[in-house]
Amino acid sequence: MAKRDEKAITPQSEDYSQWYQDIVLRAELADYSPVKGCMVIRPNGYALWENLQKALDGMFKATGHVNAYFPLFIPMSFLSKEAEHVEGFAKECAVVTHHRLGADPAGGVRPDPDSELEEPLVIRPTSETVMYAMYSKWIKSYRDLPLLLNQWANVVRWEMRTRLFLRTTEFLWQEGHTAHATHEEAWDEVVRILDIYTRFSEEYLAVPVLKGVKSESEKFAGALKTTCIEAMMQDGKALQAGTSHDLGQNFAKAFDVKFQDEKGEWQYCWQTSWGVSTRLIGALIMAHSDDQGLVVPPKMAATHAVIVPIYKDETGRARVMEAAASLKARLAAAGLGVVLDDRDTVSPGFKYNEWELKGVPVRLEIGPRDVEQGACIAVPRVPTRPLREGERRQKESLPLDGAAEHLQSLLNDLQKALFARALKFREEHTYRIDDYAQFQRDIEKGGFFWAHWCGSSACEDRVKEETKATIRCIPFDGETEPGKCLACGGASDRRVVWARAY
Amino acid sequence: MAKRDEKAITPQSEDYSQWYQDIVLRAELADYSPVKGCMVIRPNGYALWENLQKALDGMFKATGHVNAYFPLFIPMSFLSKEAEHVEGFAKECAVVTHHRLGADPAGGVRPDPDSELEEPLVIRPTSETVMYAMYSKWIKSYRDLPLLLNQWANVVRWEMRTRLFLRTTEFLWQEGHTAHATHEEAWDEVVRILDIYTRFSEEYLAVPVLKGVKSESEKFAGALKTTCIEAMMQDGKALQAGTSHDLGQNFAKAFDVKFQDEKGEWQYCWQTSWGVSTRLIGALIMAHSDDQGLVVPPKMAATHAVIVPIYKDETGRARVMEAAASLKARLAAAGLGVVLDDRDTVSPGFKYNEWELKGVPVRLEIGPRDVEQGACIAVPRVPTRPLREGERRQKESLPLDGAAEHLQSLLNDLQKALFARALKFREEHTYRIDDYAQFQRDIEKGGFFWAHWCGSSACEDRVKEETKATIRCIPFDGETEPGKCLACGGASDRRVVWARAY
Repeated sequence: MAKRDEKAITPQSEDYSQWYQDIVLRAELADYSPVKGCMVIRPNGYALWENLQKALDGMFKATGHVNAYFPLFIPMSFLSKEAEHVEGFAKECAVVTHHRLGADPAGGVRPDPDSELEEPLVIRPTSETVMYAMYSKWIKSYRDLPLLLNQWANVVRWEMRTRLFLRTTEFLWQEGHTAHATHEEAWDEVVRILDIYTRFSEEYLAVPVLKGVKSESEKFAGALKTTCIEAMMQDGKALQAGTSHDLGQNFAKAFDVKFQDEKGEWQYCWQTSWGVSTRLIGALIMAHSDDQGLVVPPKMAATHAVIVPIYKDETGRARVMEAAASLKARLAAAGLGVVLDDRDTVSPGFKYNEWELKGVPVRLEIGPRDVEQGACIAVPRVPTRPLREGERRQKESLPLDGAAEHLQSLLNDLQKALFARALKFREEHTYRIDDYAQFQRDIEKGGFFWAHWCGSSACEDRVKEETKATIRCIPFDGETEPGKCLACGGASDRRVVWARAY
Repeated sequence: MAKRDEKAITPQSEDYSQWYQDIVLRAELADYSPVKGCMVIRPNGYALWENLQKALDGMFKATGHVNAYFPLFIPMSFLSKEAEHVEGFAKECAVVTHHRLGADPAGGVRPDPDSELEEPLVIRPTSETVMYAMYSKWIKSYRDLPLLLNQWANVVRWEMRTRLFLRTTEFLWQEGHTAHATHEEAWDEVVRILDIYTRFSEEYLAVPVLKGVKSESEKFAGALKTTCIEAMMQDGKALQAGTSHDLGQNFAKAFDVKFQDEKGEWQYCWQTSWGVSTRLIGALIMAHSDDQGLVVPPKMAATHAVIVPIYKDETGRARVMEAAASLKARLAAAGLGVVLDDRDTVSPGFKYNEWELKGVPVRLEIGPRDVEQGACIAVPRVPTRPLREGERRQKESLPLDGAAEHLQSLLNDLQKALFARALKFREEHTYRIDDYAQFQRDIEKGGFFWAHWCGSSACEDRVKEETKATIRCIPFDGETEPGKCLACGGASDRRVVWARAY
């Protein structure tokens, strides 16, 4: 049997999970670190995170939010202050117990026994507690409201099984935390943020999402209500792509976050929190990539195009390289990320494969004849139109004159095509279902299942246990419709969305 | 005796350290957190950090560096791999020993005894070790070099005495880590980065710096050589504003970071590391601020100007507010950060004080007569020219027509004036000194002292013990000159810079 090519990507159809890992490692997006459960985000992956930060941060600021930074450490006792929160978060945490290393009599170093902390510190799994302890100090009057803060930070939730970007002990995220004078204002904020997440996911990641509310069992520990966006991956599984929580006054009461209203009376604040994480990079990868490698939507790409010069001899080389360099300069001047792959040591075909693997949105091939004709050949990573008879790859002639505008237009088409393809995929894998036995069979092939639910946790638990599917959300856009619960047959007035999830 | 105004800023001359703390707290730059040694960076302070990040990140990228992210945790044993490094860093560290909390039989929660880690994890005090373990895996060939990575991250070094921004257990920084094929290339990188730090400090922070090399006792643990930039604060003390280390092959040997050269032979890489931290925000504050509050150099300001409308009656109000809103829109459209303080509840004088406290570079006063004349009054936070006879504050008439250009020009003048003032201050507090007894007296009033040094650690230690002054750097720009060591009288061929430091 032929030895497996170590550098080949496992086909998606053969082993989806291995396919995903191959892409992350081979496109050099991330790597396993020497610390169990923690990943290293490599430059190609971090560039995606930087673009995400830039886009989302701009949206947050445009809606009046400002950034701040709160401590990594949370006193252990803080986690216990809100009753539900302690249940949800005081579990798989990294606990700091000592503040010094000293020589180990047995050799090497060890935690210095004399440096044990009076109260252990927990590495933040999320920052409600430590932030609201400060809010309690800062907020005095209705004039201090709304308080609209966000923080970009690392958080830690101990994980035994790692999946790069999707499940790691440490991950990067943003967490917004706001305080308001009324519940109505707080709810408006919850929805405003969910709309921002939706816009970001659909316009930048090119990933369509369902918006909705979580069931009781899936909501954030300590919240009144959790809203979320849910995306479908290419294996038909759901991925929660962002959450926005209505915290009510639960934390305000636990942390004494109060304000004097216009009448001089003390009231508890109404609060929200919301976040997205490096998970979204996993969503981007899983939603668009293929067996050739990564696919990056142009709006998320640091490198928009790679120029591959093609020539046979030195004379050709000189002319082509000159045109390629001038093309690169023109595209860069227009603000596009562009790489000129001028390596002499590998063939054009090798370069094509490598840049496809890395997901660069458009390849620009330029040879002597192209130079003569004042054009180059643009090959989008994924077709932006149906392929013609006999066409294996979409190839467009791109005039060197006005190249930046032409390329931008092709990138826009590609961005739209990726979203349309993902939306079509989701529609083709979305089902209305009323029969539980059939659901139990169909769930195996993945997809979103709109089914009735009586509202009881017992039914939710049973379906989860029997099928591994959970209620992803009670969609905002769902229509009222009488029906019978998928599990127990009890009365239901609307369908909810079930799926297996990451 | 009159009760001290809680909101007043302690004069610098009365208590410099209290003055600094008052400014940080009252300008809402940072606050003490419930976690000992850790600060909260509030939005006003974080905005300064964001501007620093943006400027420096741009300079790093323009010189070929890319960002990545490495784990927060470092296996304890890693710190011991480089002999000097363990001495320098395996001390005041936060040590994670457990990964779960559980119910405490005595009530509340506690670290679950069953979750003790086999090997404790240290929160990164700096990331050489965990990063180079990855470099060892990634670097195979000379083609993989140079590797030019940077990371923006939080780090932890346990501190007992906190000073906001200047000394905190957790702080934010960037750490660059590069690997090269030759020592010469690595040294060029060390200098390139020190030049970037210098440019940033002088052009953005408006803080002049001395560039030089650290003595053996002050160099980074594990480096061949540490270069640094040193700034002077208004109390005459030095503040190390950035370091760039030539690591030689020390870490490469400890972590097996090797490459095959063009001849196919294995060589150890030559490495560098370099960083600046939230300390620089402390430097900005201490270099420019005064008894009225914070002073922010325009290039670091998120808000460049505040518009304060002035009126006596409703008719006046309507006209002034219309002009003020239009002015704000014009300035904002030009990319300037501008706030219109339209509060009716406080007087213009109150507003002046508040915005001066917060360090906004320019105040724009606009009243009915100004509107008539198509102008407003611009008041820079610090004069950009000598005040005229009888002038208490510099006030410039700023035409509303072309307001953005006029304001930008005033901001440029202010940026230059702040740098010039800081440079003049440093020059006035820089001394050449040859007599140790006089040095011991003069060091009390602060300043930089250029004095001869024989090069021995014994002399350095003695001076430090007797005067609390250290060698800040052996300046690059210093001239060769025969002389006698300040401490022992031994032969010396150049002066070094001594000062007390933060």
